[in-house]
Amino acid sequence: MMRTRPLKVALLGCGVVGSEVARIMTTHADDLAARIGAPVELAGVAVRRPDKVRAGIPAELITTDATALVKRGDIDVVVEVIGGIEPARSLITTAFEHGASVVSANKALLARDGADLHAIAEEQNKDLYYEAAVAGAIPLIRPLRESLAGDKVNRVLGIVNGTTNFILDKMDTTGAGYQEALDEATALGYAEADPTADVEGFDAAAKAAILAGIAFHTRVRLDDVYREGMTEVTAADFASAKEMGCTIKLLAICERAADGESVTARVHPAMIPLSHPLSSVRGAYNAVFVESDAAGQLMFYGPGAGGAPTASAVLGDLVAVCRNRLSGATGPGDSAYTQLPVSPMGEVVTRYHISLDVADKPGVLAQVATVFAEHGVSIDTVRQQGKDGEASLVVVTHQASDASLNGTVEALRSLDTVRGVASIMRVEGE
Amino acid sequence: MMRTRPLKVALLGCGVVGSEVARIMTTHADDLAARIGAPVELAGVAVRRPDKVRAGIPAELITTDATALVKRGDIDVVVEVIGGIEPARSLITTAFEHGASVVSANKALLARDGADLHAIAEEQNKDLYYEAAVAGAIPLIRPLRESLAGDKVNRVLGIVNGTTNFILDKMDTTGAGYQEALDEATALGYAEADPTADVEGFDAAAKAAILAGIAFHTRVRLDDVYREGMTEVTAADFASAKEMGCTIKLLAICERAADGESVTARVHPAMIPLSHPLSSVRGAYNAVFVESDAAGQLMFYGPGAGGAPTASAVLGDLVAVCRNRLSGATGPGDSAYTQLPVSPMGEVVTRYHISLDVADKPGVLAQVATVFAEHGVSIDTVRQQGKDGEASLVVVTHQASDASLNGTVEALRSLDTVRGVASIMRVEGE
Repeated sequence: MMRTRPLKVALLGCGVVGSEVARIMTTHADDLAARIGAPVELAGVAVRRPDKVRAGIPAELITTDATALVKRGDIDVVVEVIGGIEPARSLITTAFEHGASVVSANKALLARDGADLHAIAEEQNKDLYYEAAVAGAIPLIRPLRESLAGDKVNRVLGIVNGTTNFILDKMDTTGAGYQEALDEATALGYAEADPTADVEGFDAAAKAAILAGIAFHTRVRLDDVYREGMTEVTAADFASAKEMGCTIKLLAICERAADGESVTARVHPAMIPLSHPLSSVRGAYNAVFVESDAAGQLMFYGPGAGGAPTASAVLGDLVAVCRNRLSGATGPGDSAYTQLPVSPMGEVVTRYHISLDVADKPGVLAQVATVFAEHGVSIDTVRQQGKDGEASLVVVTHQASDASLNGTVEALRSLDTVRGVASIMRVEGE
Repeated sequence: MMRTRPLKVALLGCGVVGSEVARIMTTHADDLAARIGAPVELAGVAVRRPDKVRAGIPAELITTDATALVKRGDIDVVVEVIGGIEPARSLITTAFEHGASVVSANKALLARDGADLHAIAEEQNKDLYYEAAVAGAIPLIRPLRESLAGDKVNRVLGIVNGTTNFILDKMDTTGAGYQEALDEATALGYAEADPTADVEGFDAAAKAAILAGIAFHTRVRLDDVYREGMTEVTAADFASAKEMGCTIKLLAICERAADGESVTARVHPAMIPLSHPLSSVRGAYNAVFVESDAAGQLMFYGPGAGGAPTASAVLGDLVAVCRNRLSGATGPGDSAYTQLPVSPMGEVVTRYHISLDVADKPGVLAQVATVFAEHGVSIDTVRQQGKDGEASLVVVTHQASDASLNGTVEALRSLDTVRGVASIMRVEGE
């Protein structure tokens, strides 16, 4: 069965992930050949700094001309682990036009231009695989796209960013504040010098867009994803969460509306019960819950980042794409046939935990309760604590739309007896 | 892109799983067609009792002649959800010989005759898929076979039988004995009238054989799997486990030896630390931990049985096999190229928790410790409890081979001061 002419792979980028891909391709060459049915050969490695020593990669394979590499015409698969929009986008496009299939780990690019890239891949009858773009080593794209292809997914709820999970876990277990926990994450290499993409939820939002599109067989653009970072989460929020039997996680949530006619995608911190499996996801690990009609609740757990774990996902895709090329087929491509529209955040329905600073005098609770009722937001529990003329009210609601909740909060702010809204947090996973 | 001639599916068996497969094929026909690229049509349903009312299945599709159905020649995919060895085996073989690909949920058959069936499938250039055979709805075969195709799996550790997990969870949370918990499982429909296959570990052993073969790309037969049921687990064992910060689960464990030159597969009850994610798998749920060189630790969690969850896995396979037929390709088939031998249980290395009833007199501990030392089994901790001339010794060992442990226990039994060996349990997941 074994073909002797090797499949040729061009590697774009040789950083943390790329160097692991090259290492495994070399050290596990025999296994890869047996699993593919033909040997694979590293035919070129495009880098920015050619002088850097790269153990195990023959110097003659190194080039700074990525464009020439993907244009060679004899490349079977281009592995893109550069990241960012350009030049990754142009290189992938050029690769398809010159006959290669593509494996990418580029979540930002896939979230923004996935539809265009899939269209080019389909036009050229080539594969575009990107398991590594979401949740690192965790098989997630393939299970959603293939294992659940006969099922109807209703919800994807996950921790898809390891940096923020490390920070929130640290705050939860040590009582540290946000800045202190961030500093530790930076010192340990879990957070980048500029942590914006992680802590403001941009990274998770890109992954949510990709997951929602695949889960619901529709098109979800990055701009469609509601995004709230976790920089405002305080030690006090964790104390409130504990009183509720909850912890706080930054969640990516993709949902099909109850009527099935639209979907939503959002990223924000939320309280989640300690009884929910996602609550015990520690450190920089990722985990994603998937709920579907027939399968019920599934969870996928593992390392969401890092060189070797991401390389594992890239190489799984590489084997699949190589097998497809040998058999002259392509794997499941873009599937956006449902064309379900993405509803705005205002239509999302969930529960809320709201802390109010109020005047400590009779009638305040009645006033506040009236405002909730007027906006159609039903209260589950209220807890009142008073001292020295000041008091706090903690309200937990039943399910309500984000629009109704916003209307409620706006009206509460205009009450004389409400001194301030200390925090608002969604409650998920119940 | 849509082809109009439908792909024809023959369904063998229309019980709990088969009826769900038929229902989803009918109610989700449009989705399946969009995802496959062609409509799929239920072309025949083979049953034993044709008179039973089957909602949603046209009477003219029902037949009692399964052999004639798979011989028709116009069937694209045969879905086998009968279970058991015969007639399933003959029907699948006949199906391949008459041009069909096969999707099966039959763990017993795959564990016993997987190699033969794969050989016939390959000879006929057809697909044999069986995601539903292991851990119900949980995507596990596909992730192991495809997502991790570029990685090196070292260990698969899982709860793959829902009945026994329900019973053990009940014993753990309520303090019930085995029989009481089994009775409740039977009353609730989690255990069959004859629970032997589940409680004696036969079901889990079949799944372990399948998983080990796929994970290590070798051949593991059912007879190669060491098997110990969980009927001897007592409330006292759970009390001991709690003192260790552990709970007890029936685990399927497939391991690559430290030197990489052989593998082992086994099913037995074991203590597992409460900090391990598998310890919190409740009720009839399944979960499988996979450890690999590059990806690190992954976990897959979900419902391990039931009509709809199993149907979800079957339909995911059906979509993949239909896509393969349309493109004239086949998916990844049997992969046993490593030919790694399966080592006997004696070579398995793990830790042990041993409770001994001993005479309460000076020197007993020294005697017992000497026996462990003579057999090369290093002791981690010993706890001694005495009352009324009788005492118990609880020994937890460091890692030792099963053979060394057995030799130790045999020698202990021959000591005058050892009245009996109350329990021996392996400690896993550390």
